[in-house]
Amino acid sequence: MGCVAARSMHLIDLITRKRDGGRISPDEWRTFAVDYAAGTVPDYQVSALLMAIFFQGLDDEETYALTEAMLDSGERLDLSHLHRPAIDKHSTGGVGDKVSLVLAPLIAACGVPVPMMSGRGLGHTGGTLDKLESIPGFNTRLTLADARAQVERIGCALMGQTGEIAPADKKLYALRDVTATVEVIPLIAASIMSKKLAEGLSGLVLDVKTGAGAFLPETERALELARKMIAIGERRGCPVVALLTSMDHPLGVACGNAIEVEESIDVLRGGGPADTREVTLALGAEMLVLGKVAADVGEARSVLENALNTGLALDKFRKIIKAQGGDPRVVDAPAEVLPKAGETVMFFSHRSGYIRRVEPRVVGRGIIALGGGRRTMEDTIDPSVGFRILVKPGTHIMRGQPLAAVFARDVAGTEVGLACLKEAIVIGDEEPTLPPLVSHRVTARGVETL
Amino acid sequence: MGCVAARSMHLIDLITRKRDGGRISPDEWRTFAVDYAAGTVPDYQVSALLMAIFFQGLDDEETYALTEAMLDSGERLDLSHLHRPAIDKHSTGGVGDKVSLVLAPLIAACGVPVPMMSGRGLGHTGGTLDKLESIPGFNTRLTLADARAQVERIGCALMGQTGEIAPADKKLYALRDVTATVEVIPLIAASIMSKKLAEGLSGLVLDVKTGAGAFLPETERALELARKMIAIGERRGCPVVALLTSMDHPLGVACGNAIEVEESIDVLRGGGPADTREVTLALGAEMLVLGKVAADVGEARSVLENALNTGLALDKFRKIIKAQGGDPRVVDAPAEVLPKAGETVMFFSHRSGYIRRVEPRVVGRGIIALGGGRRTMEDTIDPSVGFRILVKPGTHIMRGQPLAAVFARDVAGTEVGLACLKEAIVIGDEEPTLPPLVSHRVTARGVETL
Repeated sequence: MGCVAARSMHLIDLITRKRDGGRISPDEWRTFAVDYAAGTVPDYQVSALLMAIFFQGLDDEETYALTEAMLDSGERLDLSHLHRPAIDKHSTGGVGDKVSLVLAPLIAACGVPVPMMSGRGLGHTGGTLDKLESIPGFNTRLTLADARAQVERIGCALMGQTGEIAPADKKLYALRDVTATVEVIPLIAASIMSKKLAEGLSGLVLDVKTGAGAFLPETERALELARKMIAIGERRGCPVVALLTSMDHPLGVACGNAIEVEESIDVLRGGGPADTREVTLALGAEMLVLGKVAADVGEARSVLENALNTGLALDKFRKIIKAQGGDPRVVDAPAEVLPKAGETVMFFSHRSGYIRRVEPRVVGRGIIALGGGRRTMEDTIDPSVGFRILVKPGTHIMRGQPLAAVFARDVAGTEVGLACLKEAIVIGDEEPTLPPLVSHRVTARGVETL
Repeated sequence: MGCVAARSMHLIDLITRKRDGGRISPDEWRTFAVDYAAGTVPDYQVSALLMAIFFQGLDDEETYALTEAMLDSGERLDLSHLHRPAIDKHSTGGVGDKVSLVLAPLIAACGVPVPMMSGRGLGHTGGTLDKLESIPGFNTRLTLADARAQVERIGCALMGQTGEIAPADKKLYALRDVTATVEVIPLIAASIMSKKLAEGLSGLVLDVKTGAGAFLPETERALELARKMIAIGERRGCPVVALLTSMDHPLGVACGNAIEVEESIDVLRGGGPADTREVTLALGAEMLVLGKVAADVGEARSVLENALNTGLALDKFRKIIKAQGGDPRVVDAPAEVLPKAGETVMFFSHRSGYIRRVEPRVVGRGIIALGGGRRTMEDTIDPSVGFRILVKPGTHIMRGQPLAAVFARDVAGTEVGLACLKEAIVIGDEEPTLPPLVSHRVTARGVETL
């Protein structure tokens, strides 16, 4: 029996055991991650294992062992020479969620190093890398050495998952996406944490989305995911704080790539929509406390507001853009530098009443339909398209009032966009009850309802 | 989006729906089978679907639709020109199960055409094709045209699943084997029935094994499989009778390839071990009734015994071997024609008592360890090796009595074989209670306990 055949036989044992509710040992996870990264384990066996995990789960030991195995399958960012705690934020993904673009320069401007590794949009959610790349020239493909040097020099780097980092996770993530095994809490936890732990962090803040537009809409499942990631981080000596935030409607006004960069710049100037600003400050305050530049979140919020109001945060964003090859004039004249949509139309209300819902999944799919997101990893995206949605659930509106704008490539695109808005924005007679924007705070010590 | 990408997106929908307990429609199964046979659906998505089916099952509609879809993915044997009902037998697989080798010529000798498509050994069980190929020159790789002509001429053909027959099943079967999705009742039923229905049968007799050495050891699950296959057959106008037979111990005396051919010839001469003979007659009687050459199983048994005692059945076997390129002298002098093992040793009892168990899975794995079975589809097998096990559960034995013989390639092999027998043959003080050899008869009308 050859070596590959032996591995393939071995994997059948793991699949069978997991299928029947058994456990996979740390050594077995390690061998699995190394072999899968090396390409000696076939995808068709791994996808059967993933589906067995969907049904049988992974216990905390296994989730931790898989995280370590994926982490150890690649390289790590070594930031020990900074002698300062590096802190990152991670979001489980949403629509209109441009918080990373604001937070990275903002936190770095407050003196806390931010080595931020982000993803691309997939499914109905957007991705930070796609948004950044709407800035002409901006290069997100940094090596670990580039990132290390840039964090040392200006306190922040914005990059994608390189082939060096957790390669087993990179392959597994792509496979999950095409085998209906994305929404599996231990796999989500292990995937996020293997990448985040590779960044050499001293602390991590998680934005776990809940509500209709989240991958895990139910609060209980979001809490479970938060707890799992916190447990993994604590065990590696990396404290983790998670905030559950609402993805019941898109965050802020802009939903698209270039227009979200524009909104991020508004927030970095001390303005921007209230909800984008509030989620940014809530997450940022936790980062500053973990980064030991503020004693508590109250003090941290003052530090953050100061960095926004004085222009320090915006200046840091300018430096980051310049360092990564982007056109830094974007921070002063975003409308002139960012790509512009071919056609813009307004969407008006056909009746009076209350906005009852703005469906984030419909909006997210609408962006894809306009060409601003991907159906497959090979698709290229048009950064200029998207929506500006001017109303929120609870807003009282009049017949004929403008509710949103569509940014499209051409006239046909505007029709697609208007149809999407008609489906996404639900109007009724009664004022809806709204979930809190930030509902729970979870740490190793437990859950607080906010 | 390209065509393959579209199909791959479509399959995600099917995986997700099945994962969440939903149903897949007949049209969707049809598209799936055609695309999978054509190679436009990736294995890694199919294996995720298979594992979802392991957990969520397929209802009777879906099982039937999958069977038809796999059947329709290929060609069929057209035997309508015979104007006689063609009948086949299928076994779910066991150790020492050489019944097909006896039944095919025996039933053909009684005037019922037998187009028999068999498999190779895999897992711990043996395969009819491997056994037949231990006859020097025997060719099992017949085309559908060859098989049709041979059935017309001599009433029987013994062949493997060609690339023409149910190609979607052929790929799915190979994938299940390496993804721990073999033991799934609706998939077993659809796989067997898609192949059997392609043979152009007028009736089918199923030997559903139960007990420790069966793929589905529990009686309830064996009955469920029988019922599912019967329902599929009836719906296609092909009556199916299933007998549940014991695979709690190996069938007969010989376990291996060449030595099982030898035992088959003994049975065809009217001799052979009582259990091999009894299972053969029980299944054969059902075949003759379905083939309308006997009114009931009592009459059918007389016809069968007559064909064995007069040498008609043995003569038919000789004709089949000759037609398929094998050395026909094997039926008269098997010991001279069949390949001989390099070393033979006896295994003696170390104590007196009752044989309590002869573990079929241990014996099956022992044959593989001796080189007589496959670990992967690429392995070649040594037809000469195996065991002759002289005792049955319930046999009273004395210390020093010979219990079995090992046939091995070399001296090291005999050690492996003896160790295997030591594990497989369990001796105790008390006489064991034995399950009946043939326990249930299942038809469209219901279940009879025998």
